[in-house]
Amino acid sequence: MSKTINIALVGATGHVGEALVELLEERDFPVKDLHLLASSESAGQSLSFRGRQLRVRSLEAFDFTQVQLAFFAAGVDVTRAFHEAVRAAGCSLIDLSAALPLDLAPCVLPELGEGATQGLTAPWQVSVPTPSATACAVVLAALKPLLQPRQVQLNAMLSISTLGRSGVQELARQTAELLNARPLETQAVDRQVAFNVLAQVGAVDEQGHAELEKRLAAELQQLSGLPGLAVGATCVLVPVFFGDSLALAMQSDVDIDIAAVQRLLETAAGIELVEAGDYPTAVGDAVGQDLVYVGRVRRGVSDPRQLNLWIASDNVRKGAALNAVQIAELLIKHYL
Amino acid sequence: MSKTINIALVGATGHVGEALVELLEERDFPVKDLHLLASSESAGQSLSFRGRQLRVRSLEAFDFTQVQLAFFAAGVDVTRAFHEAVRAAGCSLIDLSAALPLDLAPCVLPELGEGATQGLTAPWQVSVPTPSATACAVVLAALKPLLQPRQVQLNAMLSISTLGRSGVQELARQTAELLNARPLETQAVDRQVAFNVLAQVGAVDEQGHAELEKRLAAELQQLSGLPGLAVGATCVLVPVFFGDSLALAMQSDVDIDIAAVQRLLETAAGIELVEAGDYPTAVGDAVGQDLVYVGRVRRGVSDPRQLNLWIASDNVRKGAALNAVQIAELLIKHYL
Repeated sequence: MSKTINIALVGATGHVGEALVELLEERDFPVKDLHLLASSESAGQSLSFRGRQLRVRSLEAFDFTQVQLAFFAAGVDVTRAFHEAVRAAGCSLIDLSAALPLDLAPCVLPELGEGATQGLTAPWQVSVPTPSATACAVVLAALKPLLQPRQVQLNAMLSISTLGRSGVQELARQTAELLNARPLETQAVDRQVAFNVLAQVGAVDEQGHAELEKRLAAELQQLSGLPGLAVGATCVLVPVFFGDSLALAMQSDVDIDIAAVQRLLETAAGIELVEAGDYPTAVGDAVGQDLVYVGRVRRGVSDPRQLNLWIASDNVRKGAALNAVQIAELLIKHYL
Repeated sequence: MSKTINIALVGATGHVGEALVELLEERDFPVKDLHLLASSESAGQSLSFRGRQLRVRSLEAFDFTQVQLAFFAAGVDVTRAFHEAVRAAGCSLIDLSAALPLDLAPCVLPELGEGATQGLTAPWQVSVPTPSATACAVVLAALKPLLQPRQVQLNAMLSISTLGRSGVQELARQTAELLNARPLETQAVDRQVAFNVLAQVGAVDEQGHAELEKRLAAELQQLSGLPGLAVGATCVLVPVFFGDSLALAMQSDVDIDIAAVQRLLETAAGIELVEAGDYPTAVGDAVGQDLVYVGRVRRGVSDPRQLNLWIASDNVRKGAALNAVQIAELLIKHYL
């Protein structure tokens, strides 16, 4: 690819934004100019890209007609406030904040290859699936030739970086306070998260579902191509800094052939299958890696029609930033 | 009750053993003599009971004909080595180590009342259900009038005290090392558990199931009175010192009536239902309490026939020690 494009990165100073800058360089993405943007409080910082220090500028003043593609890796509110202006400027948008409805900005899973972006027209608006939806969808896509799940049940034990930098700082601070027997003050979360598990991420609706759980279900239905898939999901916060741990169960109408499942997972794109007896962990295996780690592949304890497995995945890199860059790589084939 | 009995407590120096001693005193259990027993390494320590210091003696030298009831709260191996001698001495046994098969030592759930001990003959050998089975079974028992679940899926996020004192020490030591940027050494567990989630507790069999997961399934089938209940279970270790967090999903053949579920849970024995919107946590609510805390009662995100809920429970007190004493209270009605 000899042509290059201009890119804007909104939310450049967050974990995901930083990982995006690294990946654009690492994967030799055909960037001409890279515009790093953030809220006016974070503007003025700088990040290294291709040996130069790029200054982070204020999003508010930015003219999106200068760029062909914008990554949105800031909060939901930021994406919702700017996405129409981005589209009006003729700029494509890859949203990492799960802010836009899936009919407006469909989810794309790079592991599905060319088919993933079929039917999209420029300027594109696409959603990067939430990190746990990505990890599950990669596994579901691999297993599709063998089984059409009737129901999936996901228990997502999310690291505190799901809440961004303030979450990471909160866990570090709370842990240090408790270990030093100082009274606990809560700031970024409303209760003790150090040495504890929080049963939900954010507020819940009248039916008791968190926004993230509903999003996850809708994304899984879209990405699996099974719009009627029954999804049960519980997303909780665990005292882990980075990396998500997922317990996934799928209900099938026939007995599960574990050997066949393992063969599919061994050869699937984007998956590293850990051998039986051992298991992957978020911290020990997934963090910093591009693959989704899968282990503990087994039937239900007393249910041969159920497949259980364990997934460890990097929520910042594979779950968000790499995914977004891979989606961009698919999209620019149409551009260049 | 004016009569009293002699009691032996095996594993007196562990967390559960200590909680048992406290509860026997707190609940004014009709103890005549209390014999505290442990391995010869732990013998010589002492614990306070009714204002006196009781010395912990060596299990090996103990004559079980001196007592009418023995609590076994040590390791699996200890129970397996001694249970026949205990029975031969005419002494009843309450096992907290999940060491004995359920046909030999059936599970008892005190919340089921008199019926729980029906059909047992002296000297009794009964099993205290594992802590997460207890928590789930209390909830299942409460909901039985409304729904007969076809399948239950449990994701049990167990605190490190599941591994006993050595586990608790390991988490404290690993956390301090990591916060002080010292190299991590693993001892009681084979990898980093601080700021991480471990996908299994103990070794797994050829089918990939951990002993604890199989036990849990069998206990739930027995306690629910639904021997054919399909159970999927994943038991993981989270970096929490005390208190278990459970995500439970039940599959029904009909749409779930959430309001009816909530009404049953509100009035059920042994359950504290946390109001919708809020949720209980292991550390913030359950630890040190006798009740099982339930919250996040809802349908599946896209599955009206699924009931999801969240349980926080004290694995040492309610999950083990209190349960054992409540079982003993049921049994001694036959004795005295």
